[in-house]
Amino acid sequence: MDHERIAVLAHEKFPDRAKTALGVLRYGDQDVRAVLDRDRAGDSVSDHVPDVADAPIVASFDEAHAAAEGALDALYIGIAPIGGGFDESWRSDVEAAIEAGCDVVSGLHYFLNEDEELAALAAERGVELVDVREPADDLTVATGASGDVDADVLLTVGTDCSVGKMTASLEIVAAARERGIDAAFVPTGQTGIMIAGWGNPIDRVVSDFTAGAVEEMLVEVGDDHDLLVVEGQGSIVHPAYSAVTCGILHGSMADGLVLCHAAGREVVHGYESFDLPPLADYVDLYEDLAAPVREASVVAGAVNTKDVADDDAAAEAVAAFADETGVPATDPVRHGADAVVDAALDAGLGAGDAADADSEVAGEGAAE
Amino acid sequence: MDHERIAVLAHEKFPDRAKTALGVLRYGDQDVRAVLDRDRAGDSVSDHVPDVADAPIVASFDEAHAAAEGALDALYIGIAPIGGGFDESWRSDVEAAIEAGCDVVSGLHYFLNEDEELAALAAERGVELVDVREPADDLTVATGASGDVDADVLLTVGTDCSVGKMTASLEIVAAARERGIDAAFVPTGQTGIMIAGWGNPIDRVVSDFTAGAVEEMLVEVGDDHDLLVVEGQGSIVHPAYSAVTCGILHGSMADGLVLCHAAGREVVHGYESFDLPPLADYVDLYEDLAAPVREASVVAGAVNTKDVADDDAAAEAVAAFADETGVPATDPVRHGADAVVDAALDAGLGAGDAADADSEVAGEGAAE
Repeated sequence: MDHERIAVLAHEKFPDRAKTALGVLRYGDQDVRAVLDRDRAGDSVSDHVPDVADAPIVASFDEAHAAAEGALDALYIGIAPIGGGFDESWRSDVEAAIEAGCDVVSGLHYFLNEDEELAALAAERGVELVDVREPADDLTVATGASGDVDADVLLTVGTDCSVGKMTASLEIVAAARERGIDAAFVPTGQTGIMIAGWGNPIDRVVSDFTAGAVEEMLVEVGDDHDLLVVEGQGSIVHPAYSAVTCGILHGSMADGLVLCHAAGREVVHGYESFDLPPLADYVDLYEDLAAPVREASVVAGAVNTKDVADDDAAAEAVAAFADETGVPATDPVRHGADAVVDAALDAGLGAGDAADADSEVAGEGAAE
Repeated sequence: MDHERIAVLAHEKFPDRAKTALGVLRYGDQDVRAVLDRDRAGDSVSDHVPDVADAPIVASFDEAHAAAEGALDALYIGIAPIGGGFDESWRSDVEAAIEAGCDVVSGLHYFLNEDEELAALAAERGVELVDVREPADDLTVATGASGDVDADVLLTVGTDCSVGKMTASLEIVAAARERGIDAAFVPTGQTGIMIAGWGNPIDRVVSDFTAGAVEEMLVEVGDDHDLLVVEGQGSIVHPAYSAVTCGILHGSMADGLVLCHAAGREVVHGYESFDLPPLADYVDLYEDLAAPVREASVVAGAVNTKDVADDDAAAEAVAAFADETGVPATDPVRHGADAVVDAALDAGLGAGDAADADSEVAGEGAAE
């Protein structure tokens, strides 16, 4: 996947219910030339999201293509309905994109490549349908090779699912790059993969290959950077998703951990009969579990204060988290991720070393 | 899978390198009428394995069929070459079995159903090719329902892979049944599935469904028994396989854990640069990780002394394990699993309750 100029489909959901579209706008290297949302056609992205590059919001792919003067490479599906299905109201846009010679990139459960009409049309027009949830078929078990890469590895781990691990990871990478650190984001879920343009969807691989699919990515890019920030998934105490969390922890052989938490969350999201343990317990659990494979300390916390009333309450939530866990904390969205970068540097992570100095000019892109 | 009379293929490897064949002979409910091993044709099973029902060893399926007077239901592939491939020298036996109207059951990585010749022949003869490593396609994420089943749940967990968790589980079930406890084995790997005749191959499912695939089994059989013994996989500190271990731990919502260890093992099998942590650390790790989903104590240890010099050394190894971990221990193969059953009962597991007393006559088989 290597798309320079794209349109993002977000019908009826932009911006608040279009997580992927927002992620690509905010963190992607792609140039978003238009957003498709038939409910907001005529508006601009900047009317709704102030802090990203502006683009027109249009009603259809054809309008997007016209707005971009025919220069689009791809259409990204930037929303996911519950269940991950394909909404038939999108079909004309997807077909128009294929007809126009654009790739179509999707993180849906529904695979575009298994849709006979779309697959036939894509074959005819010579474009690619990219289903980012479809794992590569050459993945295998981990060997322990993640421990050998040149880069230091920081992993975001969570107190629960949906606490902002992907966003924290991307903010940390951005803050590190601001400081001149050669940092790269290692995606593990479909949204992260669409933003980064590469990656293995760890939650979809064969369970025995969970750690191996992480290792494959680290080996791929680990010698080209000084700091890798691996996007964590789930939580180590999640009744359903802990396997993926554990595989990422051991597969990444992380040097440092960033504990991510949603302020105010007290029970497992969607599994409300399960209480979250005390924050300090998470620090012990993650560190104790990591240690036999690779010693790793929780170096900082990322507290998601999206649902907190105001800045004062957010500052209080962050301070309380730092107090409970004993590590520096920040809300990377509200306050930036500098505190995490500082903590990582204090722990000796991401500074590179003299031997690496000459290779700092290496490109930041990862092949897939 | 419901086969009463079977032949087991173990060419050139019976008994020492035929783990599945031995497991089926020792623990399966099936009546093994013949073992195929062309190197030992003419011998009897009892010449090599004293403590199981006897059967002739023959050179081919046709000889097995003749020896069983045509009464066979199925041929089980009882060996697995490194890599899990299909040895072409077995093809004539598999074809003969299909021709004779027998199902063929295999735990190989190589799926018989994807072999066009065998699949066509099986379709023609109306028999089933059962690839036990192929997960069902209706698995999904866990919901936490394992916590609601009537049975108490005991899970074997390991200090490493290949320490004897399946064997320990089967011995615990056998010892519990001897004591009149309505116990059942819940398999999680291909050998266990072939022995039990049902089950989900947890290491092959989509990683997000790891816990869910365990839960599906517990919900299936958990109200029909007083004690379920779940076969663990891997180890929680394994560089490659910990994801599967963690998913089974949380997916089973075990009430008690049995820590399995191979005496003398000091480094991870196949990953020798990784040291095993102290035994007592495993107790803390497994208990601390289980607790947020379901409180579970390590109630006993199962020490595999296969590679220990003699009975005295074995007794010493078991005693040392008990001393280090603080729980009762045994080698379930050398000394039986009674000590584990005692420890489980002491912990209040497996005794059923008054309300269950009437249902103890329920069948022990599980449908699949």
